[in-house]
Amino acid sequence: MDTTKYTLDEKKMPKQWYNIQADLPEPLPPYLHPMTKEPLGPQDLAPLFPMELIKQEVSQDRYIDIPDEVLDVYRMWRPTTLYRAHRLEKALDTPAKIYYKYEGTSPPGSHKPNTAVAQVYYNKQEGIKRITTETGAGQWGSALAFAGMCFGVEIKVFMVKVSYFQKPYRRIMMQTWGANCIPSPSEETKSGRDMLAKDPDCPGSLGLAISEAVEEAMSREDTKYSLGSVLNHVLMHQTIVGLEAKQVLEDIGDYPDIVIGCVGGGSNFAGIFLPFLKDKIDGKKPDLRIINVEPFSCPTLTKGPYAYDYGDVAGLAPIAKMFTLGHGFIPPPVHAGGLRYHGMAPIICHLLKLKLVEARAVHQLATFEAGVQFARSEGIICAPETDHAVRVTIDEALKCKETGEKKVILFNNSGHGHFDMAAYDAYLAGKLQDYEYPKEKIEEALKDLPKTEG
Amino acid sequence: MDTTKYTLDEKKMPKQWYNIQADLPEPLPPYLHPMTKEPLGPQDLAPLFPMELIKQEVSQDRYIDIPDEVLDVYRMWRPTTLYRAHRLEKALDTPAKIYYKYEGTSPPGSHKPNTAVAQVYYNKQEGIKRITTETGAGQWGSALAFAGMCFGVEIKVFMVKVSYFQKPYRRIMMQTWGANCIPSPSEETKSGRDMLAKDPDCPGSLGLAISEAVEEAMSREDTKYSLGSVLNHVLMHQTIVGLEAKQVLEDIGDYPDIVIGCVGGGSNFAGIFLPFLKDKIDGKKPDLRIINVEPFSCPTLTKGPYAYDYGDVAGLAPIAKMFTLGHGFIPPPVHAGGLRYHGMAPIICHLLKLKLVEARAVHQLATFEAGVQFARSEGIICAPETDHAVRVTIDEALKCKETGEKKVILFNNSGHGHFDMAAYDAYLAGKLQDYEYPKEKIEEALKDLPKTEG
Repeated sequence: MDTTKYTLDEKKMPKQWYNIQADLPEPLPPYLHPMTKEPLGPQDLAPLFPMELIKQEVSQDRYIDIPDEVLDVYRMWRPTTLYRAHRLEKALDTPAKIYYKYEGTSPPGSHKPNTAVAQVYYNKQEGIKRITTETGAGQWGSALAFAGMCFGVEIKVFMVKVSYFQKPYRRIMMQTWGANCIPSPSEETKSGRDMLAKDPDCPGSLGLAISEAVEEAMSREDTKYSLGSVLNHVLMHQTIVGLEAKQVLEDIGDYPDIVIGCVGGGSNFAGIFLPFLKDKIDGKKPDLRIINVEPFSCPTLTKGPYAYDYGDVAGLAPIAKMFTLGHGFIPPPVHAGGLRYHGMAPIICHLLKLKLVEARAVHQLATFEAGVQFARSEGIICAPETDHAVRVTIDEALKCKETGEKKVILFNNSGHGHFDMAAYDAYLAGKLQDYEYPKEKIEEALKDLPKTEG
Repeated sequence: MDTTKYTLDEKKMPKQWYNIQADLPEPLPPYLHPMTKEPLGPQDLAPLFPMELIKQEVSQDRYIDIPDEVLDVYRMWRPTTLYRAHRLEKALDTPAKIYYKYEGTSPPGSHKPNTAVAQVYYNKQEGIKRITTETGAGQWGSALAFAGMCFGVEIKVFMVKVSYFQKPYRRIMMQTWGANCIPSPSEETKSGRDMLAKDPDCPGSLGLAISEAVEEAMSREDTKYSLGSVLNHVLMHQTIVGLEAKQVLEDIGDYPDIVIGCVGGGSNFAGIFLPFLKDKIDGKKPDLRIINVEPFSCPTLTKGPYAYDYGDVAGLAPIAKMFTLGHGFIPPPVHAGGLRYHGMAPIICHLLKLKLVEARAVHQLATFEAGVQFARSEGIICAPETDHAVRVTIDEALKCKETGEKKVILFNNSGHGHFDMAAYDAYLAGKLQDYEYPKEKIEEALKDLPKTEG
């Protein structure tokens, strides 16, 4: 068998992130203020984020230097490996070439620290001592806890209560790295206390955890807030993934025809595809296909309207122009918790509107089927989120088998499934189900979009 | 900060294992037959192992070729990375240089597949369709399941019943790779049925699981048995770890003064130190120190006599000359399950007897303290077994701080702790304890050593 993996020399690791805003054919629609519904200015975000991140959010510079201190931490696990999936190709009997970039070797086990490390660094630079955030199953919270440990910044994570108790492993990971992780709703914020007064047994929700984290950050001088996806600067930090992949493919003389990834907030997939998309925009690779994969039960890009909506359930976060299912929409309980978001990164939505990228929705059982096939050929057991990318990769490779085309497919293997084995257990035991398209719930949620000019 | 990690080019990956038997100053004492107590011949082992592994067990060849098919699978995650622990050094304020080889990036998350893959390959070559084994918490069982998947050999794992139900994640991992994993005692063997007749609620034990796996392998033509540590050929397969480490250190112009690892059956540590030990035996590095670290509550090398004893509780396995606490000894329930073995690899025992290596026992709380310090500097959360090596590494680095010596320390980071987070939780919550030296239980168990000439 040929070589199966390629890793850049550490010395060749990219030293700048790529900012797609410099190359967009049309600029992004502005964020709006949640109260005034006027375009948002830097001063509106200052209570929540350090100024450098606010600048990056709207920067038009094509490349932004990665600080040396951030590169030092990246080097703990970066550059990550690009695999050629020879075994999967053989199992599928496809003429397609399949590559995947594997982000599961970071200490928290996913792509998330690519931005967590950068965010904590900039906060530290501006004298911030504490950062709050929210987390569902713990993927993002553990990445921020890791980053806080690296720079000596205190991290406080509001973890959705039901996950705090039912999925303790990532919570323990955060605590092992020294973070303070508490179940939300908590007694520590007004949002939390109000909820507990109404419903002492409230299991919590991501929307409420955001409210708690934002409230605490707004109320303390030494504290800011951090978000793990959706925003422009978060996607930009993730471009290290795509820049590495592009460099390594160039070294071996290859280039993808199709790039595939799963999307919840959109950051892992944008991280890999944006540097390739530049070539499509520049006309160097006009036929490049970029496929966003989302759950059928949370079909933001494939079924939602393109409209201004709140980023969070409570309507405290900025209003963004995006494909949305309505900020009050609660998706069915699929195991890919990281993909259960009502909206999507404004950058990805803008690109979809411009027809520069595509979107596809897949059912839960089909994703686990793909994940097991991947584990039984390539060895790696992926996170349920990642299995969405695997599903469409296999589908595209099987199409090549029919047509005989030798397409080059690249997907982002965003993380391992070590903390999701219970989901695999349920799948193997035949206890998982697919969900119908939640049409009525979405229609109901969409009635509640904010009234804006856009 | 300087470069923190070094990885061999895939093309420079060693193509042979190193066999210490070629360089031992005195030969190993022979195994004895469990019934006759006469030296064991190849024909005695033939019902359990394929002939190639039996040959390797007694081979005097210095190097043995790694088959291409095994190298192909190794390349899924090998060569593994050698890290320079700059952040730990800084946290300890030590002049020592600390390196560690990290085996946690293999799909099962430990060093175990280095031998699992080789063993399954040789079985497959000799027409074997099924392999049985036992597993405690699942580290070994998952590695064999992974290897079985790679070569299309059916794997059946007898998993200690209490772990099967209390620690389901590795069981699910085995099933995801397609292995058949059942709780032991089972109804499928006489050993299992006998136990269930006596005690239907029996929680199982590693000794009983071995008996079930061996019984099934002996009773079927198409089935052999596989062991994950202790035996000479298992240690030899693990030398890929040390050969890679030695090569990479040579490339950067460094060499360890001290090599450290944790020992249960002994395979991960022997894997890293044997290639370096050759230089000590050859007189090239006479002052090299090699420190075996074991739990204080299972102090085989530090407290046991050097005597002939059975490898398993039931007395079915070959009798080996080793340091032992008695084959009936059940250690206190420390979380480092992989180190709870009454005996030790005969090669390591022989080397200790010859004073070529040292041994040290450490308490449980001190190992978790070291593991948390490591996680909070290097980012990686290690398996509780590995934390034993981390403990002594930190101790030796702190000695260097006192003396000002710039020693070079290398330890084997044998695997991650993603499936052991509950142990970290207990430690962080102050719920873990140390155990006294189990003097009386050991004295009792040692009364039951087999009567032999040795």
